[in-house]
Amino acid sequence: MTFRRRVGAMLVLTCAACVTVWAAAPPSDAEFLKKAQALFKPLPKVMDSAANPITPVKVQLGKMLYYEPRLSKSNVISCNSCHNLATYGVDNLPASIGHRWAVGSVNAPTTLNAAAQVAQFWDGRAKDVEEQAKGPILNPAEMGLAHADIAVENIASIPHYVGLFQKAFPGEAKPVTYDNIAKAIGDFERTLTTPGRFDKFLEGDVAALEPNERKGLATFIEVGCASCHKGALFGGGAFEKFGVFRPYQEATGSKVLDTGRFEQTNKEDDKFVFKTAPLRNIERTYPYFHDGSVWDLDTAIAVMLGVQLDKKLAIADIENLRAFLYTLTGEVPIEARTLPVLPPSTKKTARPDVN
Amino acid sequence: MTFRRRVGAMLVLTCAACVTVWAAAPPSDAEFLKKAQALFKPLPKVMDSAANPITPVKVQLGKMLYYEPRLSKSNVISCNSCHNLATYGVDNLPASIGHRWAVGSVNAPTTLNAAAQVAQFWDGRAKDVEEQAKGPILNPAEMGLAHADIAVENIASIPHYVGLFQKAFPGEAKPVTYDNIAKAIGDFERTLTTPGRFDKFLEGDVAALEPNERKGLATFIEVGCASCHKGALFGGGAFEKFGVFRPYQEATGSKVLDTGRFEQTNKEDDKFVFKTAPLRNIERTYPYFHDGSVWDLDTAIAVMLGVQLDKKLAIADIENLRAFLYTLTGEVPIEARTLPVLPPSTKKTARPDVN
Repeated sequence: MTFRRRVGAMLVLTCAACVTVWAAAPPSDAEFLKKAQALFKPLPKVMDSAANPITPVKVQLGKMLYYEPRLSKSNVISCNSCHNLATYGVDNLPASIGHRWAVGSVNAPTTLNAAAQVAQFWDGRAKDVEEQAKGPILNPAEMGLAHADIAVENIASIPHYVGLFQKAFPGEAKPVTYDNIAKAIGDFERTLTTPGRFDKFLEGDVAALEPNERKGLATFIEVGCASCHKGALFGGGAFEKFGVFRPYQEATGSKVLDTGRFEQTNKEDDKFVFKTAPLRNIERTYPYFHDGSVWDLDTAIAVMLGVQLDKKLAIADIENLRAFLYTLTGEVPIEARTLPVLPPSTKKTARPDVN
Repeated sequence: MTFRRRVGAMLVLTCAACVTVWAAAPPSDAEFLKKAQALFKPLPKVMDSAANPITPVKVQLGKMLYYEPRLSKSNVISCNSCHNLATYGVDNLPASIGHRWAVGSVNAPTTLNAAAQVAQFWDGRAKDVEEQAKGPILNPAEMGLAHADIAVENIASIPHYVGLFQKAFPGEAKPVTYDNIAKAIGDFERTLTTPGRFDKFLEGDVAALEPNERKGLATFIEVGCASCHKGALFGGGAFEKFGVFRPYQEATGSKVLDTGRFEQTNKEDDKFVFKTAPLRNIERTYPYFHDGSVWDLDTAIAVMLGVQLDKKLAIADIENLRAFLYTLTGEVPIEARTLPVLPPSTKKTARPDVN
């Protein structure tokens, strides 16, 4: 073991400089795995939270609310409208469509694995999925409710929901609150993990990756992608400037210039700073970047290489990178994909208002 | 048996005139059941068609297409947007929202049990669910594709779909056609049956109905509802004038006067003639009537009694009718409610156009 480790360390030092060295003297399976394990983590089964511990009834309730169009003014839009679990928690649009066909300003990120991120939204303005869930319901260009109280009144008008809130939040005198709506939705999202083939590799099954995928992973590490896209999510752990070597819009062709966190903080250092996108299920969550400006994954890879790392790679290398990234596609849990039976409205439930 | 039948027949003759007679001398369980069985049928497990026989792969494909937003111009709207299987195959809106937030002209009927109807749409202009499925995709106010070829090209651009069409329509040189898209969706819809508590009663379990529900059923038969709302679906079997004794809009408060089949046929006899609404799952498919003008089931019952039968009933009778109608609520099959995993687009797939 000691000998192997030393050889491994030497190889790592040698290989850090150049991918072609690896082609000549590839590291042992064990060393390669070890290197990957140091950078990446398997996805957890669930993404629990001390502040909002997962319980089966809260998840059941949260799933209903995730699919609940009565949390929108029109009764047409639910969380699942833009974060469609039939399409990996996204709508595959550059920007989502909201109330009265409003077009959103940024690309809707996937809800899959989202709870494990350092923060929510592209600019990180919500600290967790619970806080995030409160946003779209009240956004006039999304679900369009005028006030949180309307969401609470709508849900509280439906006895089946009241019963579930009582079970999900025992001991609370008035459990149907906007905070608890968000907690339930958050808890459901905390179950949305999608382990894939890459996790098998990371857990020790080195044969789980094909040779070209393994080459892609090696390149991913060597050229510097993994300095930001790391951890269990391959991203989502920090904020970085998009456009390190040149303005991103030169490469993405973005028509609107979004300054990222700067719009929240007004700090010069936050200009063009966004949350690093998690790369789990990237195959399915096109179009890419905060503005959905790029449709093709190979192009997105080339953009990132140029703009963030000042690098250009051969087509074959990009193809291997793409093949590796496809190993991050997992399975959307079937329980989450099974539509709940939503309880009927009552005379006290607000009627839909599509205007 | 012979004696019982005779007594039963006498009771039926006596009771046909007035509900109160039954209260004094209720028919035997067996006779009541027999009477119900003569008018109503249990729901079939599936609603198969000789022209489009159900096969597992066609149903699997049809389910994917039912949930497929790429059959709409915007990639936002699928069949399930308006016929949401989380809410009993409807959107609980007076009229659905379509492309660019267009508001539809009639209430979206449920897809549940729909295949067993004599025809589709409120005016019966499509002969079956296969023909019906072709409408909304190309309706500018619904899914908004400009031409059937675009639907075909979109689906044919996705290899996973092509493979499924080859399996679902074996022996066809080019199986991805608009007809076959409709056939697959139709076949999926042919599995959407929702047997409920009433079917248990009809199959012989007379205790499946509570006394008030049974009273409601008796009233339903006696006052004449069952002359149109009969068969397995409690309707959906014929066309009738809405407004026999007085114009419907006087009772419903409808703001727009829809002349029903007249708009298709231009025949005077078809003025205000609509397909008889099936009453299965009526509890969940509010708001009511072709224009969704009435939200409350008790009101809808009173409207029908007045407009179609020139009758008024006591509140208690209407409550019993409603209680009986609730026994027609069934379960949406869980397989149908489980969202498919939709295959990714390719470079050949048209990008969404929300304009």
